[in-house]
Amino acid sequence: MNTDFVLNTFAFLVWGALIMWMCAGFTMLEAGSVRTKNASVICLKNIGLYSIAGLTFYLAGYNLMYLDVGNLAGTLSLGYGPSAEELALLEAVGAEAPAPEIAAAAEAAAANQYSVMSDWFFQMVFVATTASIVSGTLAERVKLWSFFVFTAVLTMIIYPLVGAWTWGGGWLSQLGFSDFAGSTIVHSTGGWAALAGAIVVGPRLGKFRAAGGVKPTPPSNVPAVTLGVFILWLGWFGFNGGSQLALGGVENAVAMSIVLVNTNLAAAGGVLAALIVSRPLRKRVDLMGVLNGAIAGLVSITAGPDILPHGLAILIGAVGGVVCTAGMVLLERLRIDDVVGAVPAHLFAGIWGTLAVCIAGGYSFGVQLLGVVVIGVFVFGASWVTWTLIAKAMGARVTETVEELGQDVAELGIEAYPEFVLMPDSD
Amino acid sequence: MNTDFVLNTFAFLVWGALIMWMCAGFTMLEAGSVRTKNASVICLKNIGLYSIAGLTFYLAGYNLMYLDVGNLAGTLSLGYGPSAEELALLEAVGAEAPAPEIAAAAEAAAANQYSVMSDWFFQMVFVATTASIVSGTLAERVKLWSFFVFTAVLTMIIYPLVGAWTWGGGWLSQLGFSDFAGSTIVHSTGGWAALAGAIVVGPRLGKFRAAGGVKPTPPSNVPAVTLGVFILWLGWFGFNGGSQLALGGVENAVAMSIVLVNTNLAAAGGVLAALIVSRPLRKRVDLMGVLNGAIAGLVSITAGPDILPHGLAILIGAVGGVVCTAGMVLLERLRIDDVVGAVPAHLFAGIWGTLAVCIAGGYSFGVQLLGVVVIGVFVFGASWVTWTLIAKAMGARVTETVEELGQDVAELGIEAYPEFVLMPDSD
Amino acid sequence: MNTDFVLNTFAFLVWGALIMWMCAGFTMLEAGSVRTKNASVICLKNIGLYSIAGLTFYLAGYNLMYLDVGNLAGTLSLGYGPSAEELALLEAVGAEAPAPEIAAAAEAAAANQYSVMSDWFFQMVFVATTASIVSGTLAERVKLWSFFVFTAVLTMIIYPLVGAWTWGGGWLSQLGFSDFAGSTIVHSTGGWAALAGAIVVGPRLGKFRAAGGVKPTPPSNVPAVTLGVFILWLGWFGFNGGSQLALGGVENAVAMSIVLVNTNLAAAGGVLAALIVSRPLRKRVDLMGVLNGAIAGLVSITAGPDILPHGLAILIGAVGGVVCTAGMVLLERLRIDDVVGAVPAHLFAGIWGTLAVCIAGGYSFGVQLLGVVVIGVFVFGASWVTWTLIAKAMGARVTETVEELGQDVAELGIEAYPEFVLMPDSD
Repeated sequence: MNTDFVLNTFAFLVWGALIMWMCAGFTMLEAGSVRTKNASVICLKNIGLYSIAGLTFYLAGYNLMYLDVGNLAGTLSLGYGPSAEELALLEAVGAEAPAPEIAAAAEAAAANQYSVMSDWFFQMVFVATTASIVSGTLAERVKLWSFFVFTAVLTMIIYPLVGAWTWGGGWLSQLGFSDFAGSTIVHSTGGWAALAGAIVVGPRLGKFRAAGGVKPTPPSNVPAVTLGVFILWLGWFGFNGGSQLALGGVENAVAMSIVLVNTNLAAAGGVLAALIVSRPLRKRVDLMGVLNGAIAGLVSITAGPDILPHGLAILIGAVGGVVCTAGMVLLERLRIDDVVGAVPAHLFAGIWGTLAVCIAGGYSFGVQLLGVVVIGVFVFGASWVTWTLIAKAMGARVTETVEELGQDVAELGIEAYPEFVLMPDSD
Repeated sequence: MNTDFVLNTFAFLVWGALIMWMCAGFTMLEAGSVRTKNASVICLKNIGLYSIAGLTFYLAGYNLMYLDVGNLAGTLSLGYGPSAEELALLEAVGAEAPAPEIAAAAEAAAANQYSVMSDWFFQMVFVATTASIVSGTLAERVKLWSFFVFTAVLTMIIYPLVGAWTWGGGWLSQLGFSDFAGSTIVHSTGGWAALAGAIVVGPRLGKFRAAGGVKPTPPSNVPAVTLGVFILWLGWFGFNGGSQLALGGVENAVAMSIVLVNTNLAAAGGVLAALIVSRPLRKRVDLMGVLNGAIAGLVSITAGPDILPHGLAILIGAVGGVVCTAGMVLLERLRIDDVVGAVPAHLFAGIWGTLAVCIAGGYSFGVQLLGVVVIGVFVFGASWVTWTLIAKAMGARVTETVEELGQDVAELGIEAYPEFVLMPDSD
Repeated sequence: MNTDFVLNTFAFLVWGALIMWMCAGFTMLEAGSVRTKNASVICLKNIGLYSIAGLTFYLAGYNLMYLDVGNLAGTLSLGYGPSAEELALLEAVGAEAPAPEIAAAAEAAAANQYSVMSDWFFQMVFVATTASIVSGTLAERVKLWSFFVFTAVLTMIIYPLVGAWTWGGGWLSQLGFSDFAGSTIVHSTGGWAALAGAIVVGPRLGKFRAAGGVKPTPPSNVPAVTLGVFILWLGWFGFNGGSQLALGGVENAVAMSIVLVNTNLAAAGGVLAALIVSRPLRKRVDLMGVLNGAIAGLVSITAGPDILPHGLAILIGAVGGVVCTAGMVLLERLRIDDVVGAVPAHLFAGIWGTLAVCIAGGYSFGVQLLGVVVIGVFVFGASWVTWTLIAKAMGARVTETVEELGQDVAELGIEAYPEFVLMPDSD
């Protein structure tokens, strides 16, 4: 039992560290996707959001999501820490208690299957992922501090409530809603929050022309975007693999292996599908569509990476890639400005993935759909209200002058590439 | 036994994830090495090749390499999955069978030492590495889809056949050929495939002047190249460390530690050697030579990272660094255009490393040499035929206009750094 | 016992690999911080220093730090390797000895708790971290080979001596000096060495104007700097987590989890604190201050990441962020030129962190202060002498012409971004 405790704990820590690394992936993806004049501020937003998410989740988010959850929410209490049994064990070790006493304390602590704070760490990097999704969509026009305020609300209240209903054991979980690593709980939640923000904040100046055209805003640094996607892909092994929530025991090791293989196959399927459909849907071999297809494949499999046979994972990822590519076209038609395509990749593919677990059998389509709809309505609504309040209270959007100058110079006084000669931004 | 199963499996997964990360390393290395006008397309080639390799290896490659291998090849069957024992275990757990029944099923599954799909995952990232080597050499002129077709052939047929003869248990293995983590099987295979491609596709326009000079094509983004090398170095801990193929058991943990230390020492030796010889051989302290020296050191030790004493690893890596630096000069003399120096680093150093295991004793130089030659002839021949067929069927090389414009604009319609003012390409 | 041996060993290897990755973090941080004309040479310095550190630590450093340490130093002997028990085990396995014989050999090897070379690997990446700190401070004017000579002295003599007094079991350790993962031993040591170098080598040309002003030298590539900080943050999980020095046993798994959580909370605290104080102290929301705040938070918690309650970690990190931001201002006032702010982040925050462990109780403030002072005097003095000797013997600093041209073109003949049109450097 003690060895299982150690293995479960170590898996949380190693995979959790890889998930933290996804924040660097989002940062590179976004810094490469925005125009150079906003690349510094998006870096600041990303390191800021990761820090804020970690602190708010420590202060209250985790407790709201996991501590004595009833139907709707956990406890609103401050801070978190190791269990009494763990503290007793550490004290016994520190005091060099006799070996049998330490062994007994270890046995007591090991009853929990894994160390309390390793689980906390693993859950914390999940909430940070949710927050990361929002920054990309709203890049290039949302105010720095307004974004941080929204991040605090999302990570301290909105996401933890969704989490309480599901992974925390609340009402949706009791109905049988299933979302292995969070196609809906993490990715769609981030996507809905981003969509609400995109609507409230509005598109970038000149993105959608009155006459009906769309101003192309190509990524300013394609290798950075690609690096970001590779980081996300790597981190996803931790995201899905760690969501097995245990490593000790042959069955967990077997399941974790299946999860990693399916995660990889679905991403590969998403890439290939996006590659193939990008020509008819986007009118050329579209690198950005392919890169987003990888993410969409990953998001799609996240609700059920434990499914078999493996061929199904390829299919689910491939459909995710198509959904995402089509979604990018749809958003443009709806004149919603999503700088990095996060809504198609995380929200649309997340919905698909959550429903797709039914293909493998054993889950109720109705309950899955209910979860998708209820969480969607709640997160979109709560985010819309929050963004609207922020807009009223402090302004959600930078001024036209700041937007034209770029947030880097105007808000930070620091350019991303100050020595490089850049082209003037043309409309 | 069950704990060993879990540990072996987890090592495959963690180290395998780090090897996947090497694909990002190759991408950064290559995107930084090519001229800016081809940086986007090399990103697409890399994420594409990783996806294709994963899918073809799932479809057929793994089975050809490992399933009931006779002397020459495994089985040509479609798809792969967990063992019957593992499926029975998962079913028992899912059905909440009585504890003794689950324990018995776990015992049965654990007889295999590690989970079936964790091994598959680990082998899959190896084939992707092989394919990654090719893209760098042929950058800036090979057609996108032609490259993808070659990647499919390499990863579904050529590499698996080489693998079947060796790691799969075929004839070379039976003769006693030894290649711990693939100096020849992975790196030289990739190098031979790249060399054949470089000959069939030919050098970049204007690279070799009629009068005899060589046009310098310096890397467009040196920090990106450096980042790529660091990623590869990190990933190599997984590449070589994981190739111990087991973690459970004191002897495996000891061996894995020795492997990581030697891997690191050899790379350091390669760096220092390249640093020292770059002035006489390349006429200046040559950063690109030093970076390639790190890779050559890593490739050199890959055939025998378990050797002792450790000082030998430094020596093998250092010689590898020199071989690579000299090889870069040689290739230029032969007027073979290898954009990133992958042939010197992966093929030449790979040959050296495969022969060098004899220094530590216990292996037949004749058999090692036989393996190097036979695999070389086969891979070079098969790749040459494949590239020639591709050239006839669909063209291997972009048109002169595309090459001059750059593949990014001409093939993808997307520049890598669209906002940056770039120098015109001069001859 | 054998399972604990495997777990302890694997933790050293996995976390050690992540620490090696920190070298890539320093490289990106520094390559993005310097002006473009010195970005290639800083890449070479970083891959060179990591290689040199690994080789010198193998040759003599480790032995001086850990082998039969008396009060002051270990043994001055050449090279290192597995224990006799481990070699016997490997031999028994290689010779396919009977199972009970192998089991007995495994038992004997496992008495050491972890494999000898896994510990060596883990300690080696620590010394590389120390050396990495120096390169950033001295960037843009220190000579390539002079820097390498200093690196060799630092990693073979200075750092190992400090290490012998503390982690090696020498006099400071016997007095009760405590530094969990090296706020002082690693980070302040690097910081003192950097400070001595900055004073001997002097500031960059024109950095401090005779009239009293400071020439702004903004980072040339902000996303690269940000990526570097994320890499460091990730690597720090290995740095602090691995410093638990064991994974086997419930108490170690519990402690390692607490360490990772505190590491993350302190970094987040550093970010938030730097964000908040950057306006009054630096006159704007200062991205570079925030990024450095993350590092300062990490350095601050490194002496005691096992402290509880977790809220204390936030506080310690936050104060570290403030100390660092104030330190950046102070250094400028003192007209000491630290290109990346490594002295405030690693030295000042390292001092703070080493003293701050007393807050949690159980340590003597006097002894902590003594350690800080003695190590400071020794490292600064030894580094100052070394730099001075280097300056006399071979010159520490490039010529004015080289500095104006940039080290990339003048020392390496390779530009970092040769195709990009750059602004002329203005004074």
